[in-house]
Amino acid sequence: MAVITVLGAGMMGGALCVPLVDRGHEVRLVGTHLDGAIISSLKAREEHPKLAYPLPAAVQPFFIDELDAAMDRTDVIALGVSSAGVDWAIERVTPYVRAERPLFMITKGLHWDGETLAVFPDVVRAGLTGDARETVWPMAVAGPCIAGELARRVPSCVVLAGRDRRALDHLAPLLGTDYYHVSTSTDVVGVEVCAALKNAYAMGVAFGAGLHERRGGKPGSVAMHNYESAVFAQSILEMRRVISALGGDPDSAAGLAGVGDLDVTNNGGRTGRFGRLLGLGLSVEQAVEKMAGATLECLGIIEVMREATRALVDRGELDAAALPLLQHMAEVVLDGAEIDMPFGRFFR
Amino acid sequence: MAVITVLGAGMMGGALCVPLVDRGHEVRLVGTHLDGAIISSLKAREEHPKLAYPLPAAVQPFFIDELDAAMDRTDVIALGVSSAGVDWAIERVTPYVRAERPLFMITKGLHWDGETLAVFPDVVRAGLTGDARETVWPMAVAGPCIAGELARRVPSCVVLAGRDRRALDHLAPLLGTDYYHVSTSTDVVGVEVCAALKNAYAMGVAFGAGLHERRGGKPGSVAMHNYESAVFAQSILEMRRVISALGGDPDSAAGLAGVGDLDVTNNGGRTGRFGRLLGLGLSVEQAVEKMAGATLECLGIIEVMREATRALVDRGELDAAALPLLQHMAEVVLDGAEIDMPFGRFFR
Repeated sequence: MAVITVLGAGMMGGALCVPLVDRGHEVRLVGTHLDGAIISSLKAREEHPKLAYPLPAAVQPFFIDELDAAMDRTDVIALGVSSAGVDWAIERVTPYVRAERPLFMITKGLHWDGETLAVFPDVVRAGLTGDARETVWPMAVAGPCIAGELARRVPSCVVLAGRDRRALDHLAPLLGTDYYHVSTSTDVVGVEVCAALKNAYAMGVAFGAGLHERRGGKPGSVAMHNYESAVFAQSILEMRRVISALGGDPDSAAGLAGVGDLDVTNNGGRTGRFGRLLGLGLSVEQAVEKMAGATLECLGIIEVMREATRALVDRGELDAAALPLLQHMAEVVLDGAEIDMPFGRFFR
Repeated sequence: MAVITVLGAGMMGGALCVPLVDRGHEVRLVGTHLDGAIISSLKAREEHPKLAYPLPAAVQPFFIDELDAAMDRTDVIALGVSSAGVDWAIERVTPYVRAERPLFMITKGLHWDGETLAVFPDVVRAGLTGDARETVWPMAVAGPCIAGELARRVPSCVVLAGRDRRALDHLAPLLGTDYYHVSTSTDVVGVEVCAALKNAYAMGVAFGAGLHERRGGKPGSVAMHNYESAVFAQSILEMRRVISALGGDPDSAAGLAGVGDLDVTNNGGRTGRFGRLLGLGLSVEQAVEKMAGATLECLGIIEVMREATRALVDRGELDAAALPLLQHMAEVVLDGAEIDMPFGRFFR
């Protein structure tokens, strides 16, 4: 049994506590400054308001100003903040990071500094100070895992990625239960590129459902599934190309983080609902409004990727014709273009 | 413009005629001895009874005893029979096959002769006689393509696979239209293994939906999608392993024939409905009865694969632990075992 402190009490941070408690750990869940209402509910023994589901009574909730107490004698630190909160989170946890204290994150995204497209575990590592920067290898969890299902103990398979094999082999057995299955990978770049890009690509897959409805079609076995699945397969191909350009293993796109997470996002994710609205013919503004404040990671990642791929192409590290789907999605959500999927440029 | 003769007038054979007519070809559709009612309907200018949708008026329907006339001066032969009808079809078309007459098939399946697991284009080639056996390279179409959607001209991307690059480059441009996009691959083994296995794996993915309902769950964004997507990703991994064992390119599983076709089968295929019934707790017999005579390719392919993988393992060509998902599905549909997905043996 270990003490595990999770920073970030949103849906995924909250849900992660369920297998950790079931695994027998002492679990401390720390809200960010945006999570005050969640922590108040949990302290009052009410359900997690965003999950709309109770967490195990053993989970110990902490406000952010109680971070010191939450980190006291902890064995493992988990970051469950949103991608927008990564810089903030690094600053907060840095004083508590040390060699014998594994750090992993469930935050998904890519960081673009105008020159390099970096995965979050590497960004976190670069943000550490002193000894920790040399001895700690931040890890990340990816794969198909809807928080509301994990909280209900639906069987889930995830992949823990990190650059250090020993760190992976130490942490993975601490996380797994009989319904939360944790495999490992040293391909941080491949796994994390997939985890970030799947939000963008799930939007493109969902264009098909919206277009079908817009033409008067009803959901059913004959709809525009051929369209959706062609976009799905092209998504995996483009993930492979981005991974290769960044020096990762393109085969990661065929696994849990790519194929698996894209599939689950299509079936249960917010991004799919957003893509469907665009397919129905709503403008980006109208669709965002309809989503009523839901976090839309797809918009941020598409913006980052447009800039980053332009630079990669300019430097000769990526073929200009490599990502026709991503390019078209950027035209739709950033330039207001009509959806007109460039199938003729797919699978070349 | 070419003359194209399609043998097999079922759903996919019928739907294939739509892009061929739109591409400007003279299209002749020949029913097998099981397709008499379909051909009668088409000759009476009624809709295609299985597609429940009209074919273009330019399609010329032929009964099987009119095969000679249908093959007269034809430029291309397409086989659209079911996997059970492949041997019959080879015998029928052999007299008409010659070097300057490309042959391709939309039939999906694998052939096991007790020793070798072969893909259909190779089986067809071995069945040819005389010169044709040396000069004709049968090709096959795979990828996510629901017949009812193709008939309605839904944008679709498929892959034409064959061992001869020149034959592919000659045929592919004859098939494509502005909604039927045909890419090519020389990896016949990889593409055809995926095309055959996806029927089995789609059943396993659908167990999740049935189990969810069985537990009183409603369809929605929180269901058992984590389960389904883990099975999806494991399916692709197992396809890769089978392909490698047979000497194909495992990357084909990440493309249209693997990821794409498995996705479309999950969303619109019969096999998914069958898997859901098993997940609900029906016995195989009950589920088959509920499917009311629909062709269930999954059962045949699982039987073939059980025998074939045992032989491959015995010969040291496949690891005994390589296919835990396929093995479990075989236990369920062949031995009547309860569904108990072996997630702990996935992604190893």
